[in-house]
Amino acid sequence: MEFDSKLINDAVASFSKLPSIGKKTALRLVLHILKQENSLAEDLASSLVKLKEGVKYCTTCHMAGDSEDCFCKSSYLDPSIICVVEDIQDVIAIKNTGHYSGFFHVLGGIISPINGIGPDDLKISSLLRRVKESGSEIKEVIMALPATMEGDTTTFYIAKKLQGVDVKVSSIARGVPVGSELEYTDEITLGRSIMNRVNYSVQ
Amino acid sequence: MEFDSKLINDAVASFSKLPSIGKKTALRLVLHILKQENSLAEDLASSLVKLKEGVKYCTTCHMAGDSEDCFCKSSYLDPSIICVVEDIQDVIAIKNTGHYSGFFHVLGGIISPINGIGPDDLKISSLLRRVKESGSEIKEVIMALPATMEGDTTTFYIAKKLQGVDVKVSSIARGVPVGSELEYTDEITLGRSIMNRVNYSVQ
Repeated sequence: MEFDSKLINDAVASFSKLPSIGKKTALRLVLHILKQENSLAEDLASSLVKLKEGVKYCTTCHMAGDSEDCFCKSSYLDPSIICVVEDIQDVIAIKNTGHYSGFFHVLGGIISPINGIGPDDLKISSLLRRVKESGSEIKEVIMALPATMEGDTTTFYIAKKLQGVDVKVSSIARGVPVGSELEYTDEITLGRSIMNRVNYSVQ
Repeated sequence: MEFDSKLINDAVASFSKLPSIGKKTALRLVLHILKQENSLAEDLASSLVKLKEGVKYCTTCHMAGDSEDCFCKSSYLDPSIICVVEDIQDVIAIKNTGHYSGFFHVLGGIISPINGIGPDDLKISSLLRRVKESGSEIKEVIMALPATMEGDTTTFYIAKKLQGVDVKVSSIARGVPVGSELEYTDEITLGRSIMNRVNYSVQ
């Protein structure tokens, strides 16, 4: 579906470069924008340019923010634990649980040979340096990576690299999601939930 | 899921204004853009601004294009038929079939009282003027609107307005889509395909 209009084709091509947006969806977005007030297109365009120009990454935890003055410099965080995550949205997800108050470390991805991503493409060496240079202030590294083969590989790689360093390495629990029925839970998850069972005490 | 970063939140808010893009999808798009080269964001931003500034609508057929010199001015089109469609993407869809070589008229929507769209919000009066002023050069008006209640209402409204004008009004056929099994076709479509049966001749 090609338009005679170069302007429309260009906008469709730009939108189609985004993930999960195919040509048909891109065309629908472009036609919607064409029908709306000018401000919609202008706001989107200017927020994108400002985004790319303005967003800074913390040199310590690699979290994105508006300035280099990252929230990881805050004094209210527990300095003894550091939570390792794949990407910046995971930081928000874990903060929102209200069950974590320590530092974060954003790897910027996980080891994935099939996508050509090795350990050197991630912020792993800066994590190791951060842990070692803390002078045993950091007591625990919590690995909070996806429950996939790539996630597990990355956790294993980092845990191996931290062998000999005086720090506890833990991983977030894999198990039956809250609200799920056992019969609909897959075998591997159910198996791990039995292996990783926790003591239950009535108080 | 709110970020500390105003820049990210602004970009997410802008994307979420587009149809079928919720907050989670918007965030995924923004994080994708953040990870890519600057050019992706710049290309998208500039194509959007150029789109809104540059696209012109033909004052005759209301098709969008890069200049006011619309393809409806071409001499190779059959001037005796005019195809009435809801939106500009329908023009491309019908052109691509290769079965139509006449003029188009883009209504810019269909009559939809539930969405507050009445006949005066559409390019209906300019269609009537166009047909009447052609001096019976236009012999047939083909209504190619969606097979919905709104589409049928709009077709009926325009056909009614063209009563007394020396022009044939037709509508694209409703029937069983090519490649479909009868047993999976809904009753209304099947009923209309029987009512609108066509003569079959072996040659």
